[in-house]
Amino acid sequence: MRRILYLGPEGTFTEQAARTLVSRVYPDATVGAAQAVLSVAAGPDADLVLAPAVTVRAAMVEVSAGRAEAVVAPVENSVEGSVPATLDALVDADPVVAVAETVLPVRFSVLAAPGTTPERVRTVATHPHAAAQVREWLARELPDAVVVSATSTAAAAVEVLAGRADAAVTAPLAAERYALDVLASDVADVRDAVTSFRLLRSPGRVPEPTGVDRTSLVVTVDDRIGTLADLLTELATRGVNLTRIESRPTRDRLGRYRFFLDLDGHVAERRVADAMAALRRRSQEVRFLGSFPRARIAGRAVAAEISPPDAYSDAAFAEAAAWVQSLQEGSRA
Amino acid sequence: MRRILYLGPEGTFTEQAARTLVSRVYPDATVGAAQAVLSVAAGPDADLVLAPAVTVRAAMVEVSAGRAEAVVAPVENSVEGSVPATLDALVDADPVVAVAETVLPVRFSVLAAPGTTPERVRTVATHPHAAAQVREWLARELPDAVVVSATSTAAAAVEVLAGRADAAVTAPLAAERYALDVLASDVADVRDAVTSFRLLRSPGRVPEPTGVDRTSLVVTVDDRIGTLADLLTELATRGVNLTRIESRPTRDRLGRYRFFLDLDGHVAERRVADAMAALRRRSQEVRFLGSFPRARIAGRAVAAEISPPDAYSDAAFAEAAAWVQSLQEGSRA
Repeated sequence: MRRILYLGPEGTFTEQAARTLVSRVYPDATVGAAQAVLSVAAGPDADLVLAPAVTVRAAMVEVSAGRAEAVVAPVENSVEGSVPATLDALVDADPVVAVAETVLPVRFSVLAAPGTTPERVRTVATHPHAAAQVREWLARELPDAVVVSATSTAAAAVEVLAGRADAAVTAPLAAERYALDVLASDVADVRDAVTSFRLLRSPGRVPEPTGVDRTSLVVTVDDRIGTLADLLTELATRGVNLTRIESRPTRDRLGRYRFFLDLDGHVAERRVADAMAALRRRSQEVRFLGSFPRARIAGRAVAAEISPPDAYSDAAFAEAAAWVQSLQEGSRA
Repeated sequence: MRRILYLGPEGTFTEQAARTLVSRVYPDATVGAAQAVLSVAAGPDADLVLAPAVTVRAAMVEVSAGRAEAVVAPVENSVEGSVPATLDALVDADPVVAVAETVLPVRFSVLAAPGTTPERVRTVATHPHAAAQVREWLARELPDAVVVSATSTAAAAVEVLAGRADAAVTAPLAAERYALDVLASDVADVRDAVTSFRLLRSPGRVPEPTGVDRTSLVVTVDDRIGTLADLLTELATRGVNLTRIESRPTRDRLGRYRFFLDLDGHVAERRVADAMAALRRRSQEVRFLGSFPRARIAGRAVAAEISPPDAYSDAAFAEAAAWVQSLQEGSRA
């Protein structure tokens, strides 16, 4: 029985993402749930146990030590931006690589004790990030309610169970976990807000290319005028499209920078492999964070897809390499 | 009497930054403080009144409408990353430009009711972001205390005043505002964590170049392979160093991207002006977020300074332009 850890607590968007990702990556496994990282109490027949972890970093340590199979962590929110704790752990901890991603719409449920009517709600508990994303809804629908802060959306549900708040703004999954009524669902000020999550494992076999893949890298370089332009030109000249970039100062050394890059394509494709080799030559360090199928929301691509021109196909790379080799061997001119 | 708004509530790092920035930008003004955005109750002789605002966006609206002089907002934290609410407001709202920045070390104070000893602290209130940055300190120094969530570090101090928590983790400034004792100061797990803040005004006179300046831009482009490499090459070929880059998806249109760029240099320098004109030609939109002196921490530069080679000096640009003009006029060959 292997453990899959997710950033806890239970009943949050990350647990929801973990369920989706596990069913996709391990389609034949029977899956149980545990209450805590060290618990092994699940169905005795389960192949996999889903368990919450306190931090992404702690979960990655469990994976690197061989005590857990994988970690599910949030990577980026379209409103709040990247999740720095995940990014930093990806760089500082022993290497783990993503093998799958999923994107969840950020739509909240509002839960209350059975029988509660909206008119009777005076206090609403939730996490400050969630509060920021439903502020307009609360002002419109529950104008008399005061928002009280909880450490997570799941903790907010517990506040309601304990009688310390009248309602909670939570992930939809919390309605399954807690004996509360759903006052409202599908609640969000920004309709298209999404959060992306990845399933991370110790380095091993890379998922097969699907034709619509993403490759994620961290590149560390010394600060020099034009360094980044040079690196991105290595991608562009090979037809590799960049879908996300973020610079983060390194903590260890002033004047050394780190870039988180997401690319369209798979390390098994020659244009991507060739570009990565060039980045490797031109930087202090390149850490491979995985090649995996790009997530879609309800069938549509999350970002526009751009196919590389024919000049960048595997066949074109192979033909060109064979031509150069034939010149080197003197077999043609 | 003009109002300077900062992201409230009072007694936080942002108020601390606002005081620093106002004394630098308005060195001769007498400064009062107000309790709320709409309050005008300050010293009757004050030229400027510092007042908290509920959101950065609301404060920017006040500035654009001419009802406030400036806004002070957090822009980036070295641990938590950029502050998306500020970045998005900078793009969506009417234009405002930064005229000054400051960088504060993130060091917290722990406040408690007078006479409280560390042994008696069972509950510690603070904002979740602050809690994340002092977790190790709390585990070591107050191992028996439970952390309870507050909506801000200042609200945490109010929890202590109200008897609902034994201690609060706050910005140092809170010790001035609230009648509490300082149990500990200079508290932080990551010693070199910093947050940067900017003072933003309606577009007008740009601060004079100092030789150590920063220019901040938002560039919006359609997604095409190599777009960003091309833009950055425009900077690199003019000796302009990039100190920060972050991509953000635009909400309005799939496949259109937005890059927040910080550059070394000032729009009054020819190399920077020339590069900005090139970006303007090659993108959908370039929004100028200001040129201003780069912040330093206690006399040292926040990031390494890189001087452009002589080929990129104003004199070199002027000489080269004069040469081309003389060719166009036929006055030399």
